[in-house]
Amino acid sequence: MVASEFVSELRQRYGIEFRNLALLDEAFTHSSYVNEHKELGLKDNERLEFLGDAVLELTVSDYLYRKFPDLPEGQLTRMRAATVQTRAFSAFSKEAHFDQYIKLGKGEENAGARQRKTLLEDLFEAFNGALYLDQGREANIKFAEQIIFPKIDAGQFSAAMDHKTALQEFVQQDGEVEISYHLLSESGPAHDRQFQVDVTVDDQVLGTGFGKNKKAAEQAAANDALLKLKA
Amino acid sequence: MVASEFVSELRQRYGIEFRNLALLDEAFTHSSYVNEHKELGLKDNERLEFLGDAVLELTVSDYLYRKFPDLPEGQLTRMRAATVQTRAFSAFSKEAHFDQYIKLGKGEENAGARQRKTLLEDLFEAFNGALYLDQGREANIKFAEQIIFPKIDAGQFSAAMDHKTALQEFVQQDGEVEISYHLLSESGPAHDRQFQVDVTVDDQVLGTGFGKNKKAAEQAAANDALLKLKA
Repeated sequence: MVASEFVSELRQRYGIEFRNLALLDEAFTHSSYVNEHKELGLKDNERLEFLGDAVLELTVSDYLYRKFPDLPEGQLTRMRAATVQTRAFSAFSKEAHFDQYIKLGKGEENAGARQRKTLLEDLFEAFNGALYLDQGREANIKFAEQIIFPKIDAGQFSAAMDHKTALQEFVQQDGEVEISYHLLSESGPAHDRQFQVDVTVDDQVLGTGFGKNKKAAEQAAANDALLKLKA
Repeated sequence: MVASEFVSELRQRYGIEFRNLALLDEAFTHSSYVNEHKELGLKDNERLEFLGDAVLELTVSDYLYRKFPDLPEGQLTRMRAATVQTRAFSAFSKEAHFDQYIKLGKGEENAGARQRKTLLEDLFEAFNGALYLDQGREANIKFAEQIIFPKIDAGQFSAAMDHKTALQEFVQQDGEVEISYHLLSESGPAHDRQFQVDVTVDDQVLGTGFGKNKKAAEQAAANDALLKLKA
């Protein structure tokens, strides 16, 4: 069963008290642990992760919808994508000390899986799935008020509304690179100019875009590059 | 405002009675209508679509999680993806007669947008977003019990659990084609054989896959082909 110090920590830090501790235990059981202890017939946390993913998607969507009453759908969608993603969820998992309590197989432990971002993301989702089953969606909202919403309020994901910033963050994950934008053409009559821009990363063309002004064309080029990089 | 016959129809067919009719009206207002009537300062349904998308994701995930207690996460995810997608949502929109009541601009009307699957999908999401804001998530679940869950129960999306069926459905959207699987190699010791298979569609190789038996390798090849086709 899950460590009693973790049960205390959840109560003290977040006011969360599970009724069904088996659900909490399932959320903190990695498939590698199940595989190494087949004789125990345990359940891994993957089904809870499936459910928690959808719970978090709605929790964040609802919050963004109400917090930004004037933001168009496209920007809400980008903000949501930036919030509901590996880097953010893995950081939340660490903030809540979830990484200290997941049960891993020895092979995965030795391979450093405890600090692997996708594992920590899955764990955050599984925890939220378990919380939802145990106590209903209000409990997920209360937890998000402590761990997710303050980051949204602080603007941590606002860069997502801007493709150029997003491209910069994406390509610089692997170290410093040089990004630059070049005007390729300007065409059309004065009242309906069309600008074409490309974007290079370390001198390699990664995307092109059109727009009614240079700034809009740069944003389109950055978005094009991001879509290609993430494909 | 939204047609009174539609308000009656929602009450009679689905037992749904909106408190705030402005929300229902917003859900049925396409951006093309807003653009053609700028003087009215209307809101289009895109923000509600953003919210409804997440509401439906959780509604379906929760149902699948409970209905299939023994299904592993991968198959749940495929079932969810098959349920929460354009073809399914646009059919639900038509079943509920939503297509008859959306307000479109004249240009889009003439272009046949009223029967466009992506528009009907967005409309289904926007309606669910409005219902959620008006009455809370229980109302979405009740509506889904009438319009979504019976199709899940009838196995309409179960093919998604199987990559070969999914590939067949995907490539045959554009007419009849011939799909075949070929064993390329068998290797490894008897207790740990590895099979490699490719899949061709009209004699063109579209994917390859490995597995511990021929069947598993075929599923992997079909999945590989699907990922490439959808990229």
